[in-house]
Amino acid sequence: MRKRAVAVDLRELGRGDLLPVRGIALGVAAAGIKQPGRADLLLIELAEGCRTAAVFTRNRFCAAPIIIAKEALASGALPKAIVVNTGCANAGTGHRGVLHARQTCEKAAELMGIDAVEVLPFSTGVIMENLPIERVTSALPQCVADLREDNWLAAAHSIMTTDTRAKGASRRIHIHGETVTVTGIAKGAGMIRPDMATMLAFIATDAAMSREALDSALRYAVARSFNCITVDGDTSTNDACVLIASDRAKMREIEDGVSYEYRSLQQAITEVAIELAQAIVRDGEGATKFITISVEEGADNAECEQVAYAIANSPLVKTALFASDPNLGRILAAIGRSGISDVSKLKLYLGDVLVAENGARSGDYREEQGRRAASESDIAIRVVLGRGAASATVWTCDLSYDYVRINSEYRS
Amino acid sequence: MRKRAVAVDLRELGRGDLLPVRGIALGVAAAGIKQPGRADLLLIELAEGCRTAAVFTRNRFCAAPIIIAKEALASGALPKAIVVNTGCANAGTGHRGVLHARQTCEKAAELMGIDAVEVLPFSTGVIMENLPIERVTSALPQCVADLREDNWLAAAHSIMTTDTRAKGASRRIHIHGETVTVTGIAKGAGMIRPDMATMLAFIATDAAMSREALDSALRYAVARSFNCITVDGDTSTNDACVLIASDRAKMREIEDGVSYEYRSLQQAITEVAIELAQAIVRDGEGATKFITISVEEGADNAECEQVAYAIANSPLVKTALFASDPNLGRILAAIGRSGISDVSKLKLYLGDVLVAENGARSGDYREEQGRRAASESDIAIRVVLGRGAASATVWTCDLSYDYVRINSEYRS
Repeated sequence: MRKRAVAVDLRELGRGDLLPVRGIALGVAAAGIKQPGRADLLLIELAEGCRTAAVFTRNRFCAAPIIIAKEALASGALPKAIVVNTGCANAGTGHRGVLHARQTCEKAAELMGIDAVEVLPFSTGVIMENLPIERVTSALPQCVADLREDNWLAAAHSIMTTDTRAKGASRRIHIHGETVTVTGIAKGAGMIRPDMATMLAFIATDAAMSREALDSALRYAVARSFNCITVDGDTSTNDACVLIASDRAKMREIEDGVSYEYRSLQQAITEVAIELAQAIVRDGEGATKFITISVEEGADNAECEQVAYAIANSPLVKTALFASDPNLGRILAAIGRSGISDVSKLKLYLGDVLVAENGARSGDYREEQGRRAASESDIAIRVVLGRGAASATVWTCDLSYDYVRINSEYRS
Repeated sequence: MRKRAVAVDLRELGRGDLLPVRGIALGVAAAGIKQPGRADLLLIELAEGCRTAAVFTRNRFCAAPIIIAKEALASGALPKAIVVNTGCANAGTGHRGVLHARQTCEKAAELMGIDAVEVLPFSTGVIMENLPIERVTSALPQCVADLREDNWLAAAHSIMTTDTRAKGASRRIHIHGETVTVTGIAKGAGMIRPDMATMLAFIATDAAMSREALDSALRYAVARSFNCITVDGDTSTNDACVLIASDRAKMREIEDGVSYEYRSLQQAITEVAIELAQAIVRDGEGATKFITISVEEGADNAECEQVAYAIANSPLVKTALFASDPNLGRILAAIGRSGISDVSKLKLYLGDVLVAENGARSGDYREEQGRRAASESDIAIRVVLGRGAASATVWTCDLSYDYVRINSEYRS
C-alpha cells in the first residue's frame, strides 16, 4: 500500500503476540470501502456482562460515528458489539454521515439479535467523503462468520490506514492465582496530537472491574500514553480509545482505589496503552527517528507539557533530527517560545550529555557527542527547568521527505 | 547559494524599487562570517535628529544583540547607527555573545565618532555558534566607506540567510505638498511565527514624527503585517522590527492621533510592512504557494487568530496544498482542534467557492472547483464563523519537500 525507504525499529507483530481475552470475539471482512481485497471492516462481539468505558476526541468537528457512540454510551445501554471500518472516516459528512453510522449499527444489531443502541460504531480514513454504506452492510455477515477470540492480529490489520504495521500489545498478570489478560490494538500514523484519546484504540481485559474502576483505569492509562504523543500536532476528528472488561476471569470484582489488585491491573492496562501509543509514533508518517522528550523540574505540569510539545511539534527541530543534526539552537528557540516565563536555570541534555546551560553551549560539550546522540534511531531530549518538581514526557518522531510525500499523495 | 525547483511569484527587486530616504545612509561589506565573498555586514547611519522605535521577539531565549539593543533604547540615547550581520545569530551564546555584541557596537562607535550606546546591533543566522568578532570588526571600516543613501538594495541583499530573494518596498506620499518617502527592507524565510515582530525588518521615513506617533505607527503596522504571518510556527530568537523617522522632510512634526497626516503616513508605513511580510511568506522555505487565511464573524479577535493559525500551521493542510489537493477535511479538522467552542454556523470558502457548511460539503460543491482553486499559486481560504463581528487574516505558505531539504541541510 505504501512504500517507505527508512523506518524506525518497529517489530512485526506475530499471531502469538496478541493473547485472546475471554468473552471478546473478533471478525473481519473485506468490504472494499476504499480498496478491494483488503480487510477493512472489523466487528468485535462483547459477551454478556462486559463493561465498556471510552474517551473521545475533543475536536469540535467530531465524526458521525463518534456522535453515535457517545449517544449509545450516554443511554446507559451496555455495548455488545463494536463495528470499525477503515478507508473512510465518515467525518465532515453532516446528517447523511449520522444516518450511515446508524445504519451500520442497525445492520450489526439485526445480524446479532441485539439492539442498535448496543452497537458502537467507529470509522477511520479520509475525511469528508461519504461512507459507502451498502458495502459496509453487505460485508457485515462475513464479519459475523469470522468471529472468534483468537483473532486480534487480523483485527489489528483491519483497522490500518497509512499505518505500515499492525499495532497490538498484550500483558498477562496474576491476581489471587487467577490469570488475567489485557490485550489491545490501535491504529494511527498521521493527524496525531491526541487531546483526549488518540485515533482508534481498543483494549480489553477479562478481569471483573466495577464501572468506576474501568473509567479510572482508562483515564489513567490514556493520560500516560495516547495523550503523550504527537506526530504532526493535528488532532483527529475520529480519535477514540475504548476499554472493555469482560468479567470472565474467576475473581471478585475489582473496585477503583488503592488495592493491590486494582494497581496491578491499572499498571498492565497502562503498559499496553503505552506500547500502542509508542508504536503509533514509531510508525509516524515518514518517521525515521523515535524521540522521547522529558521535561523535569517544572513549576507545574502545564508548563512542562507546553515546553515538551513546543519541541515535539517544531518542524525545525524535527527536520534537524531527521538529518541527525544536533541543532541545539532550534531546541532552545522552541523552548523559548513555548510560553515559559523563565529559562535562566535551564539545562538541556541530549541523551546523557549536558549540551546547554546558562543560555549557551555547555563548556564541556563537543559537537561529536551531539552528532552521535542525534544519529541514533532513538533520541532522548531532556530539559531540566530548575523551577519545581513537576515533569512531563512526550513521544514524537522526526519530519522527513516521506511525511510530505505521504501527505501530499494521500487522496490521489 | 540555494537552489529551488519551484517558487511562488516573487518579483526580483531592482535598484529603482527602493527609494532613498533622506538622512539614512547604508553601507555593506563582505566580512566572511559564514561564507567568503558575499556581503554579510550592514551599517545604517542615522543622521542627527532621527527618532527610532523598535519591537522585539518575545522568545525567552532572546539573542545577545537583542539584549544590547533593548538596553540602548531603554537608556534614552538616540540611536545613530545600526549594525546587522548575517551568517550567525549570536543567540544561545551566553555571556560571550553579549560581549561580542558590545564589541561590535564599540567598534562602530569608534569609527563614527559616536557613543557605543548610540549603536543598535542585530544578528541573524545559525543559533548557538559564536560570532567571529574579529571578522566583524575588521570589516566595519569597509561598511563606513560604502555609506550612501542610495544603497537600500545592497542592504537588502546583505541581510539574507536562507532567503532566495532580497526583500524591500517603498512608498511615496505627499503631505502638504512635501514628498515623504517610506522605504523598508526585511529578511526571513524560516523560523517564522512572529510573536511581536518578525525576523529583521528596518523601515525608515524622512517624515518628522513625534516619539508617540513613531511608536504607535510601528505597532499598528506590525500588528497588520509581521504578526500575521507564519511559515513553520517557530518564533525566532532574533526577531526585530525597527522604524526610523529622519525628520528631513520639510514639515511640522506629525503627532499621534487621528490627523489626516498621521493616517496617511501610518498607512504608507503599514503598506511597506505588509509588502515585506508577504515577501517573507512568498519566500518561505520551500514555499510553492502563497496562502491567505481570513477568518470572519468571530466572537473576538483571539478566536479568529486561533482558527487562522491552527489552519496556517497544520502540516496536513500545508502538505495537501503543496499537492494542489483541496483536502477540506484537513481544514475542518484544524478548525475543530483550534480551541473554538462552536462550529455549528461555520461556512468554509476556497477562493470564491462555498465548499462546506452544516458540518459537511456544500451541496453545490464539486471537487473540480476545489482542485482549480488549490492549484493556483495564490490560494485564499475563508472561514466565516457566524458568531460575531471580529476578524483576522494570516498569510502562510505550503509545506514541501524543499522545506525538509533546506532545514535538514542548513548547518551541513
